[in-house]
Amino acid sequence: MTYAVIGTGAVGGYFGAKLAKAGREVHFLLHSDYQEVKNNGLKVQSVQGNFDLPVVNAYDDVRQMPACDVIIVALKTTNNALLPSLVKPLLKENSMVLLIQNGIGVEEDVEKLLPGVPLLAGLAFICAAKNHPGLVEHQALGRIAIAPYHKVDDSLLTQMADEWNAAGIPTKVDEYQHARWNKALWNIPFNGLSVVLQNSTYELTHEPQACTLVRAMMKEVAEAAQAYGATAVNDDIIEKMIEMTRNMTPYLPSMRLDYDFNRPMEIEYIYTKSIEMAARKGVKMYHTLLLEKSLRHIQTVLDSQKTNK
Amino acid sequence: MTYAVIGTGAVGGYFGAKLAKAGREVHFLLHSDYQEVKNNGLKVQSVQGNFDLPVVNAYDDVRQMPACDVIIVALKTTNNALLPSLVKPLLKENSMVLLIQNGIGVEEDVEKLLPGVPLLAGLAFICAAKNHPGLVEHQALGRIAIAPYHKVDDSLLTQMADEWNAAGIPTKVDEYQHARWNKALWNIPFNGLSVVLQNSTYELTHEPQACTLVRAMMKEVAEAAQAYGATAVNDDIIEKMIEMTRNMTPYLPSMRLDYDFNRPMEIEYIYTKSIEMAARKGVKMYHTLLLEKSLRHIQTVLDSQKTNK
Repeated sequence: MTYAVIGTGAVGGYFGAKLAKAGREVHFLLHSDYQEVKNNGLKVQSVQGNFDLPVVNAYDDVRQMPACDVIIVALKTTNNALLPSLVKPLLKENSMVLLIQNGIGVEEDVEKLLPGVPLLAGLAFICAAKNHPGLVEHQALGRIAIAPYHKVDDSLLTQMADEWNAAGIPTKVDEYQHARWNKALWNIPFNGLSVVLQNSTYELTHEPQACTLVRAMMKEVAEAAQAYGATAVNDDIIEKMIEMTRNMTPYLPSMRLDYDFNRPMEIEYIYTKSIEMAARKGVKMYHTLLLEKSLRHIQTVLDSQKTNK
Repeated sequence: MTYAVIGTGAVGGYFGAKLAKAGREVHFLLHSDYQEVKNNGLKVQSVQGNFDLPVVNAYDDVRQMPACDVIIVALKTTNNALLPSLVKPLLKENSMVLLIQNGIGVEEDVEKLLPGVPLLAGLAFICAAKNHPGLVEHQALGRIAIAPYHKVDDSLLTQMADEWNAAGIPTKVDEYQHARWNKALWNIPFNGLSVVLQNSTYELTHEPQACTLVRAMMKEVAEAAQAYGATAVNDDIIEKMIEMTRNMTPYLPSMRLDYDFNRPMEIEYIYTKSIEMAARKGVKMYHTLLLEKSLRHIQTVLDSQKTNK
């Protein structure tokens, strides 16, 4: 299969580089570090072993790229308005669009932007950052769950998962609601709390009173997940996820990095849509709502500071 | 005993009017509705029976007022910087200052402003508002707990409580830490949440998932209270307080009114100081902290809007 990576940040860069290293045809759309990657390729510093790709298919204009079998969207959801212009030129028969994006309700909205295009949700469990041009730093984890939002050919899905696994990316095909809510279980407490409370996964999982708050939010997510049929998102998983996070090297989630670098936070899909989707099933996520309100106010303050500059 | 009321809002106006009606000598310091009260007195619309005081001792300048035995401070804590100039002219031998104010750590700070002056904490359990000049609207409850922060003459305290009880104000002398933390148990969830979530005591006590959040915050307050020796602030009291609030007519707490009328919110003493005092004893109030952060951001947004006008 051929792959396009739209948004070659930490996540898109990491998965794309792993696939390219395994011999797959991968085309990378770049923005700020296009020239660096065009000239010198991609470097991956990984806990699982460093590697370089001295030559990659690098583009700064989607119209130069070939149509591909799989279009990997690894943009932040805050850029999703760009998807029609970024994705449509890359579509061919049987193309699938894999949205490696955080949040709930993403596909429901992207479907309106790309009608008739088969969408897959991609839920990455990875700690990675791209703080230097052409360099992906991979700190921990690195697996992905892929879940069809639309009916797609099973053989295509299996082939793709096989290619990813063969490339050293632990990949599992999952059920859609389970995949999204299971990731939300992590995203909802840790992303926002690390911004509002200005701490990391360390404090949030090591201080018992912080854990109580994390657990209370996770319970709300689990209640919503179960209302959507994702019964495997339960108390047992909550404890396992807290334990896994407690054992991680202290980590600043993506929303905290967005905050620190003054980029817009993904409040809409990680929080607002989750709360809305839960409410549709009668689940009122009050802890999550309190956090969402706090983040909205923080974003308002940040935006007004920008405007005043 | 003679009484001065500094801050004749809903709470100061209500208690002062009840004392005056019972024949006590009460001197009221007024601000916005001084002229109205000077001319026409105070009116109280109360669930326990309306009454008028056609003539009251009204002042717009503390220097015109006589020194009193009890100086009732019923200002918002956001005005406490004014206390030296407002209280000192009213002091005489054995004067006591009763701070009917919300929050934790109030006396610790006021002591620095009024060194050597005996302070009493006054914790009012009352639903009242003053939305029209000279008119106090009393909707529910109406009792007060009075707790000495400094050692005062027991007979003075008893005499005062007797006069208040005789005036129809259910009054109890309480232990200081218990009094402050017991009131914080109500203030901390209901004040802030009614602002951030834009709802009233009704939703916060009738929706089970909101109750979970209210209860989680109350548990933090109770943990802090117990660390300060206020062991009576326990799970049993939490359930009773939720039940009492559930049975109240839907109510907007004072912080919500402050927010709605664009007055500064009492974040410092209701939240920040509570969190700090708890932390001194190793109790980390994470739910409360999340709410505090949210309120701080809201206040920042409000303040910047004012500045921009």
